[in-house]
Amino acid sequence: MTQISTDTLAQDESAGGTMRGLIKHHAGTGLAFSDDRPIPSVGPREVRIKVKKVGICGTDRHIWEWDEWSAGRVPVGIITGHEFVGHIDAVGSAVTQYTPGQRVSAEGHITSGADYNSRTGNAHIAADTTIFGIDRDGCFADYIVVPESNVWPVHPDIEDKYAAIFDPLGNAVHTVMAAGVSAKTVLISGVGIIGLMAVTVAKAAGASRIYCTDINPPRLELAKELGATDAFDARDSAWIEQVRRDTYEGVDVLLEMSGAPMAMDQGFRALRNGGTAALLGLPARTVDFDFNKHIIFKGCTVLGINGRKMWDTWYQMEKLLLSGRLELDKVITHEYPIEEFDKAFETMISGAGIKVLMNL
Amino acid sequence: MTQISTDTLAQDESAGGTMRGLIKHHAGTGLAFSDDRPIPSVGPREVRIKVKKVGICGTDRHIWEWDEWSAGRVPVGIITGHEFVGHIDAVGSAVTQYTPGQRVSAEGHITSGADYNSRTGNAHIAADTTIFGIDRDGCFADYIVVPESNVWPVHPDIEDKYAAIFDPLGNAVHTVMAAGVSAKTVLISGVGIIGLMAVTVAKAAGASRIYCTDINPPRLELAKELGATDAFDARDSAWIEQVRRDTYEGVDVLLEMSGAPMAMDQGFRALRNGGTAALLGLPARTVDFDFNKHIIFKGCTVLGINGRKMWDTWYQMEKLLLSGRLELDKVITHEYPIEEFDKAFETMISGAGIKVLMNL
Amino acid sequence: MTQISTDTLAQDESAGGTMRGLIKHHAGTGLAFSDDRPIPSVGPREVRIKVKKVGICGTDRHIWEWDEWSAGRVPVGIITGHEFVGHIDAVGSAVTQYTPGQRVSAEGHITSGADYNSRTGNAHIAADTTIFGIDRDGCFADYIVVPESNVWPVHPDIEDKYAAIFDPLGNAVHTVMAAGVSAKTVLISGVGIIGLMAVTVAKAAGASRIYCTDINPPRLELAKELGATDAFDARDSAWIEQVRRDTYEGVDVLLEMSGAPMAMDQGFRALRNGGTAALLGLPARTVDFDFNKHIIFKGCTVLGINGRKMWDTWYQMEKLLLSGRLELDKVITHEYPIEEFDKAFETMISGAGIKVLMNL
Amino acid sequence: MTQISTDTLAQDESAGGTMRGLIKHHAGTGLAFSDDRPIPSVGPREVRIKVKKVGICGTDRHIWEWDEWSAGRVPVGIITGHEFVGHIDAVGSAVTQYTPGQRVSAEGHITSGADYNSRTGNAHIAADTTIFGIDRDGCFADYIVVPESNVWPVHPDIEDKYAAIFDPLGNAVHTVMAAGVSAKTVLISGVGIIGLMAVTVAKAAGASRIYCTDINPPRLELAKELGATDAFDARDSAWIEQVRRDTYEGVDVLLEMSGAPMAMDQGFRALRNGGTAALLGLPARTVDFDFNKHIIFKGCTVLGINGRKMWDTWYQMEKLLLSGRLELDKVITHEYPIEEFDKAFETMISGAGIKVLMNL
Repeated sequence: MTQISTDTLAQDESAGGTMRGLIKHHAGTGLAFSDDRPIPSVGPREVRIKVKKVGICGTDRHIWEWDEWSAGRVPVGIITGHEFVGHIDAVGSAVTQYTPGQRVSAEGHITSGADYNSRTGNAHIAADTTIFGIDRDGCFADYIVVPESNVWPVHPDIEDKYAAIFDPLGNAVHTVMAAGVSAKTVLISGVGIIGLMAVTVAKAAGASRIYCTDINPPRLELAKELGATDAFDARDSAWIEQVRRDTYEGVDVLLEMSGAPMAMDQGFRALRNGGTAALLGLPARTVDFDFNKHIIFKGCTVLGINGRKMWDTWYQMEKLLLSGRLELDKVITHEYPIEEFDKAFETMISGAGIKVLMNL
Repeated sequence: MTQISTDTLAQDESAGGTMRGLIKHHAGTGLAFSDDRPIPSVGPREVRIKVKKVGICGTDRHIWEWDEWSAGRVPVGIITGHEFVGHIDAVGSAVTQYTPGQRVSAEGHITSGADYNSRTGNAHIAADTTIFGIDRDGCFADYIVVPESNVWPVHPDIEDKYAAIFDPLGNAVHTVMAAGVSAKTVLISGVGIIGLMAVTVAKAAGASRIYCTDINPPRLELAKELGATDAFDARDSAWIEQVRRDTYEGVDVLLEMSGAPMAMDQGFRALRNGGTAALLGLPARTVDFDFNKHIIFKGCTVLGINGRKMWDTWYQMEKLLLSGRLELDKVITHEYPIEEFDKAFETMISGAGIKVLMNL
Repeated sequence: MTQISTDTLAQDESAGGTMRGLIKHHAGTGLAFSDDRPIPSVGPREVRIKVKKVGICGTDRHIWEWDEWSAGRVPVGIITGHEFVGHIDAVGSAVTQYTPGQRVSAEGHITSGADYNSRTGNAHIAADTTIFGIDRDGCFADYIVVPESNVWPVHPDIEDKYAAIFDPLGNAVHTVMAAGVSAKTVLISGVGIIGLMAVTVAKAAGASRIYCTDINPPRLELAKELGATDAFDARDSAWIEQVRRDTYEGVDVLLEMSGAPMAMDQGFRALRNGGTAALLGLPARTVDFDFNKHIIFKGCTVLGINGRKMWDTWYQMEKLLLSGRLELDKVITHEYPIEEFDKAFETMISGAGIKVLMNL
Repeated sequence: MTQISTDTLAQDESAGGTMRGLIKHHAGTGLAFSDDRPIPSVGPREVRIKVKKVGICGTDRHIWEWDEWSAGRVPVGIITGHEFVGHIDAVGSAVTQYTPGQRVSAEGHITSGADYNSRTGNAHIAADTTIFGIDRDGCFADYIVVPESNVWPVHPDIEDKYAAIFDPLGNAVHTVMAAGVSAKTVLISGVGIIGLMAVTVAKAAGASRIYCTDINPPRLELAKELGATDAFDARDSAWIEQVRRDTYEGVDVLLEMSGAPMAMDQGFRALRNGGTAALLGLPARTVDFDFNKHIIFKGCTVLGINGRKMWDTWYQMEKLLLSGRLELDKVITHEYPIEEFDKAFETMISGAGIKVLMNL
């Protein structure tokens, strides 16, 4: 039954008052801290969440640096951020599934729910998607308002530091699970934040062997600590022959997480005929690509990966976390109070940190 | 964006006034016609639909006859019926996707949307499902109120008579599409209403050969008119050897639509090793079943089919209808004004009619 | 049991004598007719087939024209051709499944059977593949010798003219079935020989709507005659918006059969988010491709298609042919005696004919 | 190329001489040891293997005990056994892929290779299957002759004790991989030899949680040592509610390995709506089964599991073994010289041992 009596629900109105937030204050580098942003009001089918812990994404870095993509899309003046955990503070008059006090995270991709993909279990690729902290106010603030249908209740056995990064962890889980790695040999090209997460996810999800490539030797070392069977510097392509020899003429699965044309070329060369490639990394521009050699003659399957499945990926992520088999603590390297956001971003941008969290 | 301004929406209140409806008025046979049932009010996330045309389902017959299942589940006093088409008359204050005037049908399975299956594209098997006309007021009335999330907008090129039977047609489409029939040999055991629909659906969906069995010779003839390659009286099992000989030791796909233990036994005998069986027909009781011979040694896949997928099945159904390849007019045999519901039910129950519609 | 007694088998020795054949006689344009080619002997696990009818493939045209690819791969002196039907004439001493007299065709891709893909049902993408009429003697001759494991027994109800073109028809069937078209909207980009076959195959396999593009107006007309819902001249891309409007923001399935970069770009633009693209057409060189827009943000699945599955595709093809739903007679336009091979090739190369057969 | 020159091959003739073997010598209990069984000759497409280590299967126990099934199928006088590892000793004249000296195991299911399933990657469910040690001479002997197409070359990094039990381990791997367990909650009902193997396989293949049931407490303890999250005595069904509560109203996957009707009933009750059940255990007779509750209303998928896929399962098994994540040493409990076969069988039949090996 979806009928509800309004008297059991919190008021659908502004809380009044002000809050802290990190604002994209001008069309240039950096963010500004504000402590007098109005606390947002909540619509009938929305919930307001008191934010507790947030993660800094590579996308936030782009917005910080105000690159071409950011300048073309992000409205100046919005609150940034989309990775977070918190507690529900207020629910709209027509909300049926949540009550104040619940610990929750949220999916950052918002859709109307009306299009073909939203109605068939693929809302993550809905055509009318907008994203928190990119197209509208995000979570780098004391409060965020999200549609009820975007809320994810956090399992009590999952710690805040993991719940705060469901969004990027979900990218890794979606990529790994879409390709399917159980009892398969896997190559992960690119071990940035999400690539590193993919190493531990692939291992927990049953990969029999995990090879990694990158051009950052310390990250390759870390990949091995997280469970990679072997990790290669991509600047020397000799590894391809070794991998092909140690497998049945190539890995079963390629998880492409760099967006680098060289990594794509190497990755497909290291993929066996009939293998599956899941592409998450975004090339900076078009790629001059050999379809015959890499896809058609090989009889490969190539999967475009975007976001996280709502909600298959989230359930998978929860199960993987509860299994105790994910090693994320080496990836979550720093935490700062939000007031020290300058230091947090610097740590992340310099590469000194990997996943950097901020507390509110 | 899901935020809405309330001033563009219809009022969330009762229309007042009364309407016609077919009521399960007592714990016994039959239904009662009423013309002073109150027009239902609409909750914030609901829409009210002015019903135009309805279909009588086998389930409605069970409720009419007040069999053991009905007596144990259906509340006396409700309006019955769940197959319909109509136009939206009013929308709740928090409805975002629909406006009055739209021609719509609706999925009859209602869920909270909160459980695992609802959140992963499988709401049709949600644990907390209730059904219109069975657990709460249905569509055999001038108006029905349904949750916004259950509404299906009808394509302008689809006639009312087809839109009124999306529910059972959806059962047939879900069964056919779950099994997969493209370029496959198919056996449909049981050609009642849904079995007959499955014949034309399977043909449109690409089945290379369609065999049917039943114990009702006129229905078997009709199955052939709708596209069955051959149709056999199940009372003589000699057809099994013929089918096995004409295929590769059995059909690729079994669509079981009778619930009869004999049909299940014959069907699995006629299924090839490695074939797929989709079970829609509900046996009246437990079945003494040879798992070794029928499933395990055969290496078969067996699919339990319930309802229709929200909304994959509905999109498939729309595409099949728009392709012009479904022959439903021989299955939709009668139409009556709702005031002649006695005659309508008698036509359906006697077997003189197949799919019987009523107009409001 | 695989043990055999040799006395029931034909002799494993050369038949002696000579035969007719079309030879790639020099490193330049054309083929030469010979009538004194030795009849080949048959090895222990091979069969020799008396060829009756053959088809001219686009590949044969490349070999005729001696393009760069042919010059780099095809050994001068071999008999060309790989599409045929005939009768078994002799079997090797260790052959167990066939006997002289059987009407057969054969898969043109030969593998050792020892590699990963051959052992897991994917011999069509085995790494050690060689092909009749390209890497070794083919079927444009009175006799061809093939491994027992490559033989396909032809169903008695299938006419020779269809059995002679199992190879290219199999390309079309494999592409269509790999993508899956049942109750789906489909775009076929490129309606050459295989693209035209794909139209009738997709229709028989249950596609709900079939759009075609090409730059050859007569072929587009023919596509419509074969069942295409609509067919567009790709030189004007306005059709893309029309197709997106008439579907749910794009077709469910793209079958790319041209290898033209423009067709690939248009095709992916016309594909809905979450759709599937099956790539059969071979681009002449690398393609400058927008992975983000076409694959990653869309969440698409891309399938590389090579050859035909052994033997799933062949069984599907047989079922489709036996269903009577394939319209191939408009595609098979000409037949010549093999002595008129010059005329046959000219008909095919000029575009006056589509599929051209030769009789022996 | 499949053409071979015979001079590089071993002779296709009997080795002469005699060997040891365990014979089903009479229609009653037990086996007899013989040391003067003739060494078998090898046909043109067969290889002869010098057996080194064998495993005793539950099927061998049935043959030992001469139960109704054995009496109806097994020919008196054959050599028993079908789990083994050894080295190739001789190859037939038409063998192309193997040479004497190679360390190999073999698939025990022999088919002609001519039927639908054998030609489409599903030879494990071919209609014309015969099995070593059941329908014809098996491996409890110094030598066994097998068709070339049944041979599996053993990876050098896999120890003999594991290679000797590829057959039952393959049953476990096929069941686990057919159901798919990656990031899923799994219930294994029945932890006999194969059930126990399935625990470690499921864990290595990425199951997030593994529940087990049985009525043998020591085996339940062992299941926990091998990685089961929890293990329950099936004689008290209270565990079902606990499991449903700790998951999303049931496990994602049921692996039924007992054949016990009570276990099947409990297992399906513990399976969530939309879950997958893989059935390997063979019920002793027909089962009175509630299809509505267990399969149809639940929308479940049920998979019949028979043998092992040739050769997908074998590759998966190899990868799992090489990953170092399978714990089989607690399952392989005893080894005896073949002359002590009485003791070996007694150890296995009494339950004192689990997987018992014999050395030749």
